[in-house]
Amino acid sequence: MDSSSAAIVLLSGGLDSAVTLAIARRDGFRTIALSFRYGQRHAIELDAAQAVARSLGASEHVIVDIDLRVFGGSALTADLPLPKDRSPAAIAQDSAIPLTYVPARNTIFLSYALALAEVRGAGDVFIGVNAIDYSGYPDCRPEFIAAFEKLAGLATRAGVEGRPLKIHAPLVHWSKEQIIRRGLELGVDFGLTRSCYDPDLAGRGCRRCDSCRLRLAAFERVGVSDPAPYVE
Amino acid sequence: MDSSSAAIVLLSGGLDSAVTLAIARRDGFRTIALSFRYGQRHAIELDAAQAVARSLGASEHVIVDIDLRVFGGSALTADLPLPKDRSPAAIAQDSAIPLTYVPARNTIFLSYALALAEVRGAGDVFIGVNAIDYSGYPDCRPEFIAAFEKLAGLATRAGVEGRPLKIHAPLVHWSKEQIIRRGLELGVDFGLTRSCYDPDLAGRGCRRCDSCRLRLAAFERVGVSDPAPYVE
Repeated sequence: MDSSSAAIVLLSGGLDSAVTLAIARRDGFRTIALSFRYGQRHAIELDAAQAVARSLGASEHVIVDIDLRVFGGSALTADLPLPKDRSPAAIAQDSAIPLTYVPARNTIFLSYALALAEVRGAGDVFIGVNAIDYSGYPDCRPEFIAAFEKLAGLATRAGVEGRPLKIHAPLVHWSKEQIIRRGLELGVDFGLTRSCYDPDLAGRGCRRCDSCRLRLAAFERVGVSDPAPYVE
Repeated sequence: MDSSSAAIVLLSGGLDSAVTLAIARRDGFRTIALSFRYGQRHAIELDAAQAVARSLGASEHVIVDIDLRVFGGSALTADLPLPKDRSPAAIAQDSAIPLTYVPARNTIFLSYALALAEVRGAGDVFIGVNAIDYSGYPDCRPEFIAAFEKLAGLATRAGVEGRPLKIHAPLVHWSKEQIIRRGLELGVDFGLTRSCYDPDLAGRGCRRCDSCRLRLAAFERVGVSDPAPYVE
C-alpha cells in the first residue's frame, strides 16, 4: 500500500468508528473522515466526531447533511421510546431488528463514501460495523459488506477501470471488549467518544440505553474505567 | 402481484423515468415517486417531475434534498463546460465516462429508494436507467442493477425476513426510439418531460447538449414531433 494512499473513514463519534479510524491511520492511510448530520437526536455525536478526527490525525473531515427524517420509522430519528436497562446478554440475544435501526442507513452512508472516494481518488473505505453486539442489524453483517464491495466495483469509474474499491470492516467479528483493548493499544482517547442514544444536554451518557449498557459492561470487563462523561 | 402493492419509482422529470413510471402504473402498482434536489443546474427537472407524477397518477411524490455539491467533480453540479453539438453516433461511440457523470449517483438514489421501500413496505423499485445511449455511465448497466438487488436483499429488514426487494429497470436494453414508442402507447405526455442539461430560464431545451441531441433525433426516427419546449 502506497503510504500516501487516501482512505475514507466513516466516523460517527462513537467508540467503534474511533477505533476504526485509528486502525486506518496505523495502516498508513491518509484519512478523510466522513460524518452525517441526519436528524439523529444524539447530534452531540458530531461534536465528538470532530474531536476524534482531530485527535487521531485525520487529514480532512467532511460532514454531509442528509434528511432521513422524511422516511421516519426509527427511534433514533422519530419520537419512539428507546429500550432501557436491558442487560448486555438480553441485547445480544434479541434477534429482532432493534427499534434504533435506521432504514438502509449503512447503505446510504457507504454510497456517500463511494462518491467521496471516487472524486478524491481514494481506493479504500473503512467502516466500523460490528456483527456481534447488535445481531439484529442486517446492514452490520459481513455478507452485507461483501455485497457492497461487489456493487462498488460495478458502480464507479475507478471500478470499471480496474481499480475496485476495498471496503474494510476491521471490527466486524470483534467483541466490544476486543475493540476497546485495540483502541487503547492504538492510543484512542475514549473520553472524546460518545455512544449514548439519549444523552443529556451536556452530552453525558444516560447509562441506561442499550448502547451505554454495552459500553459500560465492556469497559468493566477490560478493567479500565470509561473516561466519557455520564450522568450520576 | 397484489394489485395494491406499492412500488417506489425514481423520477427525474426526464423522458426515461416518465415512461418507467407509466410502466409501473400499467403493471398495477400503487406508485410512490421519488425525486432528488441535489444541486443540479437543471433544477427545472423537478417541476417536470411533479407534473409527470400528477399526470401519470402516482399516489405520492417524495422529494429528498441531498447535497452532492460537497463532492464536486461533475458538469451537472459544478461549473465545467458541457459537450455540445455532438451527433447521436458520436455520443454512443464515446466509451469514456461522460463529464455529466455524477459520482455514485444511482447508488445513492437507489439507497434512498431502498430506505423508502422499507419504511413504506414496498417490495419493488423502478429505475429508468438505460445502457444504450450512454454506454459510459457505469451505474446504468444491468450488472450494476443486479448487484444492487443482491445488496438490497442483505441490507434490510424485509430482505432478511425473506422479502427481498425487486429492482426493475425495464428500459435498460431499449433504444431511445423504443422508449418513446412505448411511452406513446401508454399515454405519456412527453410535453411535460424535460431532458436538457442546459435549459434556459423558461425551461426550454438548448437543442445542443447530448441529451437534447439524442432526444430530438429519436423523436425524428419515431416520426412525431417532440412536444417539449425548445429555444428557436
